[in-house]
Amino acid sequence: MKLPRLATYSVKGATRYGAVLEGGIVDLSPHHEDYPTLREVIAAGKLASLAEQAAGRRPDHALADITWLPPVPAPEKIICIGVNYPDRNAEYKDGQDAPKYPSMFMRSPRSFVGHDTPLVRPRASAQLDYEGEIVLVIGKAGRHIAESAALDHVAALTLCNEGSVRDWLRHAKFNVTQGKNFDSSGSLGPWLVPYTREAQIADIRLTTHVNGELRQDDRTSRLMFPFRTLISYISTFATLVPGDIIVTGTPTGAGARFDPPRYLKPGDVIEVAAEGIGSLRNGVVDEA
Amino acid sequence: MKLPRLATYSVKGATRYGAVLEGGIVDLSPHHEDYPTLREVIAAGKLASLAEQAAGRRPDHALADITWLPPVPAPEKIICIGVNYPDRNAEYKDGQDAPKYPSMFMRSPRSFVGHDTPLVRPRASAQLDYEGEIVLVIGKAGRHIAESAALDHVAALTLCNEGSVRDWLRHAKFNVTQGKNFDSSGSLGPWLVPYTREAQIADIRLTTHVNGELRQDDRTSRLMFPFRTLISYISTFATLVPGDIIVTGTPTGAGARFDPPRYLKPGDVIEVAAEGIGSLRNGVVDEA
Repeated sequence: MKLPRLATYSVKGATRYGAVLEGGIVDLSPHHEDYPTLREVIAAGKLASLAEQAAGRRPDHALADITWLPPVPAPEKIICIGVNYPDRNAEYKDGQDAPKYPSMFMRSPRSFVGHDTPLVRPRASAQLDYEGEIVLVIGKAGRHIAESAALDHVAALTLCNEGSVRDWLRHAKFNVTQGKNFDSSGSLGPWLVPYTREAQIADIRLTTHVNGELRQDDRTSRLMFPFRTLISYISTFATLVPGDIIVTGTPTGAGARFDPPRYLKPGDVIEVAAEGIGSLRNGVVDEA
Repeated sequence: MKLPRLATYSVKGATRYGAVLEGGIVDLSPHHEDYPTLREVIAAGKLASLAEQAAGRRPDHALADITWLPPVPAPEKIICIGVNYPDRNAEYKDGQDAPKYPSMFMRSPRSFVGHDTPLVRPRASAQLDYEGEIVLVIGKAGRHIAESAALDHVAALTLCNEGSVRDWLRHAKFNVTQGKNFDSSGSLGPWLVPYTREAQIADIRLTTHVNGELRQDDRTSRLMFPFRTLISYISTFATLVPGDIIVTGTPTGAGARFDPPRYLKPGDVIEVAAEGIGSLRNGVVDEA
């Protein structure tokens, strides 16, 4: 059975959400006044049942006619994990052992575009880089969540190109905020796949291709801080709420790690893909 | 003339906004359907004219009957500056020169309470600490803002106790996210003072008292990265939008800098005050 896929998109200037079928999108937003966006659908626990309503219906829009948007509009929190695949920790070559706790930072919604919209290489830097990542979308609020119960709080999965501006990551002695928050420097999507069982994420392959060339390739079974650990740890300090986004870390092979570095340039096409979730594709343009 | 002061608050379970007078609050929210919150008032450029409507009116609520909330609900971005007063850079004693660019991190709205609501010392740590700061609230959207025009983008001023959990700031090699984002560990408020001229912020005194004892005391004229510089720099990477919050850094004298450290404990009262803005007061309780 094909997994249901729910997307946020705009068509003729209006923002909508719907189910993605082979031939197009079934618009579900007009039938659900209580849920203005997928964030409210997630909070109500209605993601899977909403998707079922699309079964057998004719698509309302061809995929060519829509603009894909990040699937959760205006999440309260977008928390990104800094270093979470073992070889990537070694890339830092600072002689330190594996960290005891995950490194994390936040991104603003405005730093992301949706699927198929180009990333923007900013005027301020030529060092725009890709980072393919798997994303957990929180469905059930919680604080002090035990690892054993952590995955009960996940509503859906999606993908992220956690695009980063390398030289601006190091502007400050501490914190990578500015290099992680350039407008339209990353992407989220293409859609939400409802989470139903751990086998969907326990050992899946995550890849990033640039212009068809494989650059990142790893499996979630190798995460230094597994998904359960991330949710439990974050909930020690913050209440997780429906729609919160956890971007779970990228494998080795970002452009900055090549010698010489291979940063993104206009015309490049990046594809982040994971088994059972989908493929997130973006081009690159220069800032106007 | 007394400066107008606009607050967000809850009364009998409903969230409202209004003007703070000597004898109480004039409720302005029911008269402005186009502006559900102060964030929309700010975006419409109506902060000062809204305040004028309260002049001469009888308060609707006594201050004792309301719960103060952070004045801007759900800002798109809360950007905090890490080290911005000269003696505080020296406190780090790492032998480095003054930084070329500001260090910054983000906080979630959920990490803040309003005026007069206690901060929460978490179960996870006994190292809750205070940081008194001046806050700029953005009124006009912009990207690539010149320093000369930067203050035109400011709608209002308020205060922050940028409460931090010290040991959790150092959980990761990079980034202070977790120690800055404990639920209810900081405060914003008590109100917004509309910004009209640079003299309001160019050289004002900022103090923090704990249980009546002066702990932090400095002047904005000594900022390493002045307000104009912060706005211009942030706008190089991100579009600033109405309601965005910039927490501009804290003077020397946080509890962690004492030997032994003087962390906050239940029953303490912290007051952050700045000339022409007001006084933000919070107690401390242990997490339930």
